Amino acid sequence: MASPVRVRPPRKSAPAEPSRFDRRLNEILGHATEVFCEKGYEGASMRDLSRASGMSLAGLYHYFGSKERLLYLIQKHTFSTIVEKLKSRLEGVSDPEQRIRIFILNHLEYFMANQGGLKVLSHEDEALKNGFNSEIASIKREYYRICLALLEDLKRANHLDFNSRTAVLSLFGMVNWVYTWYNHRVDGDAEELAQNMGDIFLHGVANMEGNGRRKKPQLSS
Amino acid sequence: MASPVRVRPPRKSAPAEPSRFDRRLNEILGHATEVFCEKGYEGASMRDLSRASGMSLAGLYHYFGSKERLLYLIQKHTFSTIVEKLKSRLEGVSDPEQRIRIFILNHLEYFMANQGGLKVLSHEDEALKNGFNSEIASIKREYYRICLALLEDLKRANHLDFNSRTAVLSLFGMVNWVYTWYNHRVDGDAEELAQNMGDIFLHGVANMEGNGRRKKPQLSS
Repeated sequence: MASPVRVRPPRKSAPAEPSRFDRRLNEILGHATEVFCEKGYEGASMRDLSRASGMSLAGLYHYFGSKERLLYLIQKHTFSTIVEKLKSRLEGVSDPEQRIRIFILNHLEYFMANQGGLKVLSHEDEALKNGFNSEIASIKREYYRICLALLEDLKRANHLDFNSRTAVLSLFGMVNWVYTWYNHRVDGDAEELAQNMGDIFLHGVANMEGNGRRKKPQLSS
Repeated sequence: MASPVRVRPPRKSAPAEPSRFDRRLNEILGHATEVFCEKGYEGASMRDLSRASGMSLAGLYHYFGSKERLLYLIQKHTFSTIVEKLKSRLEGVSDPEQRIRIFILNHLEYFMANQGGLKVLSHEDEALKNGFNSEIASIKREYYRICLALLEDLKRANHLDFNSRTAVLSLFGMVNWVYTWYNHRVDGDAEELAQNMGDIFLHGVANMEGNGRRKKPQLSS
């Protein structure tokens, strides 16, 4: 296989098969994601969510408590899943560039398979309040820190010097914005896009001003 | 001045000073942007817009017709302004890299001065229907095409070969995502950010796989 990023099989220690309850929960979160995606969080009612998920309004309130809690569960599920997948894929890979390429591929793959998710996460970034919000914020921070650490490793390994924060957030911009334009027929699959974006990003940071060696990229690949 | 991108003064042919009516219009659009930004388009009512802008509800309906038309005017004003500013700044600059740096700076500067605007444009991308939407879509296409042309010029001048669509949309991702994270105290001003992002992007595309010269960046700066 010519692909530069090998996808590892799930770890043996991965959680057991989801129960029927978990599957139904995920199904309902999926429907709710679609509704939030289409109508926006503010514009969507519990009645809309009931209609889309096939669960009675009373059932929705009983199991989920509120519309806010549904949004919280969607966000928690999405970020936890993407962080877990990323950690699992990074295990045993030590090359810093390869690890950044894995980050990009993992992010793109997840959101191409869950297209509505990224839009809901981006748009409803500020909809959650207090306790709900602080738990989600901490998972997001973990994700940001993992990416920052990947860049710091690259800097150390290749003696680069650039503004890590701007670089991480530029990379997030590149991979998050795809929900506004990605078209499978035109843009290829996640692997092709990850390769292209990885090239732009890795060659870009390898040649930043601060490196004092702009004309000599430090990439080994 | 050490800055790599000089900001040109407005052209002599720029539109005359805005009338009092235009100023009041822009003021109301500014208030409406804030309300949409805070509550989302679906969640905001004409009553909210009336309260924020200080114009009576009857007056709002009289002058603007509908909430949708207000969103349309905001989007039209934003995109037209940014495209006009860009065209004016590009006049007389022929270096392809410099022209891309101008694009980045123009975009960042505009949205840092109009922080709510970018969020409303991103979030309410699909809220407009039919006629309203097609007019906005055509201004957006023009903006996209200008950026695409800038990249095509760079490719020709430096004998580069990369996927222009992925590159343009990656760049849009980088500069659009700033509304989620930009912090003036930490991230410096638009010029500093434009310099960093321009470096990542320009050095990145100069070293793309397809160029067949990955290890030799073609940048002249």
